Amino acid sequence: MVTDHSFYMNLAVEEAWKYQGLTYPNPAVGCTLRGEHGEILAVEAHHKAGEPHAEVNALKSAYYKLTQNKEILQLFTSEQIHTFLLKNHNNIFKNCSLYSTLEPCSHVGKTPSCANLIAQLGIKNLYIGVEDSNETAANGNALLVQSGLHVRLHVSKEKCEDLLFPFQKFLKERFVFFKWAQRLNGTTDGGIISSEASRKNVHAMRNVCDLLVIGGNTVRCDRPTLDARLVNGKAPDILILSRQKEFDRSIPLFQVPNRKVIIESDFSLLKNYKNIMIEGSAKMYELSRDIVDYYLCYLAPAFGGEEGFKNIEDKFEILNAGKEAEDIILWMKRRI
Amino acid sequence: MVTDHSFYMNLAVEEAWKYQGLTYPNPAVGCTLRGEHGEILAVEAHHKAGEPHAEVNALKSAYYKLTQNKEILQLFTSEQIHTFLLKNHNNIFKNCSLYSTLEPCSHVGKTPSCANLIAQLGIKNLYIGVEDSNETAANGNALLVQSGLHVRLHVSKEKCEDLLFPFQKFLKERFVFFKWAQRLNGTTDGGIISSEASRKNVHAMRNVCDLLVIGGNTVRCDRPTLDARLVNGKAPDILILSRQKEFDRSIPLFQVPNRKVIIESDFSLLKNYKNIMIEGSAKMYELSRDIVDYYLCYLAPAFGGEEGFKNIEDKFEILNAGKEAEDIILWMKRRI
Repeated sequence: MVTDHSFYMNLAVEEAWKYQGLTYPNPAVGCTLRGEHGEILAVEAHHKAGEPHAEVNALKSAYYKLTQNKEILQLFTSEQIHTFLLKNHNNIFKNCSLYSTLEPCSHVGKTPSCANLIAQLGIKNLYIGVEDSNETAANGNALLVQSGLHVRLHVSKEKCEDLLFPFQKFLKERFVFFKWAQRLNGTTDGGIISSEASRKNVHAMRNVCDLLVIGGNTVRCDRPTLDARLVNGKAPDILILSRQKEFDRSIPLFQVPNRKVIIESDFSLLKNYKNIMIEGSAKMYELSRDIVDYYLCYLAPAFGGEEGFKNIEDKFEILNAGKEAEDIILWMKRRI
Repeated sequence: MVTDHSFYMNLAVEEAWKYQGLTYPNPAVGCTLRGEHGEILAVEAHHKAGEPHAEVNALKSAYYKLTQNKEILQLFTSEQIHTFLLKNHNNIFKNCSLYSTLEPCSHVGKTPSCANLIAQLGIKNLYIGVEDSNETAANGNALLVQSGLHVRLHVSKEKCEDLLFPFQKFLKERFVFFKWAQRLNGTTDGGIISSEASRKNVHAMRNVCDLLVIGGNTVRCDRPTLDARLVNGKAPDILILSRQKEFDRSIPLFQVPNRKVIIESDFSLLKNYKNIMIEGSAKMYELSRDIVDYYLCYLAPAFGGEEGFKNIEDKFEILNAGKEAEDIILWMKRRI
């Protein structure tokens, strides 16, 4: 039977996109574990910095699927899962193939090395989307080849590169994404647009952003809080882009403890930050066009509202289209 | 290892939605074939009336995947594939499980009975989304239970029902869907919106529609042809919804041979037709709201244009979100 490796890798890619924007300062990574007959044992992703890497989440799921041993479901830290698997794997992974959108890490950071774990579990084949350019984590690949694994690079390479781009960008300087919510008929005004699940997702992103950019008019009209209360998260620093520096300080965003609010008329402040979300609509879109890397649109399947993106002629490439409860979530880049 | 049957069924459902609107007078049906270890041997759908059913397409793909015998790839009619498989299957399917969104047909129509084929190939388990309410094709299930298969009904039942609804509706009276193309910012004007792949898809739907409804203003302004030339297909009859009966007869849609063009000020003509596409934007949307079953939106990831759906407050449920080249395709129903 001929194996379509891109099929398995694309499952990992799709799973990883669900956590794009949530893994900072780590990359979004997905992992599929394939059994010797081609069966899918697990499709998992890295969810959040400090939590297990995608490979560890996939090995945990696959272990449970193969053994029905519920003990592993009680383990949540990477250390616990590594230790448990090394002790109890009983060679169940020995004919398995592992697909990872990114080269498994070789360094011991917040979690032990994934490359080591993969080698010690006796996994047979490793398929990798892209190499890790982060020098401290790289070379998992070389370590694995030495240990006798069959390693193949660049499976679904372009898709894995699109997924990894934000990470490479914030490693190098900073990643800037523009997020908006709209209805199907393109409107961005008129009250709450997205589902509760989508709004929680945005709050989880704010929790890991170090700077949130917003327009002065939006602050004056909407009087927002712009925190991460729906996920009990940390409120990011705020840049209010405004020539007029006077604001009513009773607007909720000024009341949030442990956050800086800076009011400036340009984007020069961005140089001090790494993971930056811009929230806005038409006017902010035009002002920020030259500094935005990716666009993130929450699309609610509804008609209503009045105002949207007018007098702009841009085209986008959809990098990923996902579904969050009732809404569509689009990650895109602008075609140039 | 515990099997997640809905996972396999959902693959079949997703594949089938790609052909929703193209299978008339047959239903859109998907089929997944699972090997004894849980490996996916095939995920296929029914593409078009007169061509093989989903189960036959899946068995053909799986046979090739398992044997690498290219002979079967040269066979395109259901009869050829049935005959070949019955002669050459060599028990390769005997531990397989088949997932079909719809109960396999028991009658010999344009193609031989799928239920018979499944029984004779010795497939072990059959998972069905919904029973076939079409009396001439139904009872494939009973036939299969008699032959010793393990049959389980109602796997991912709701998803399979949404998929099957258009078929049940045109069997009973008629299925009406409202199709439009728009940009991400909600506009429907200003020239060609969708990708070539999306437009081909629409022409393929026109080819199997028996009536296409369009507004008088659109006919006067856009001077459309409304045929199926991109797929060398048959042009459907046209209902121009207009109180004003005078039209410039040099408008291309009047020149298409073998089509009726009827001009009326209401929808009473629809009673003579079974599979009806309405093409339009805001005004037609409001006029047809009470007679439309499903909505089909081609969403191009671009900003531009000026006019869209204004002063309407409806909400939708997304039944399926797919991707056709660069566009998003949404099948929806209106929330009431």
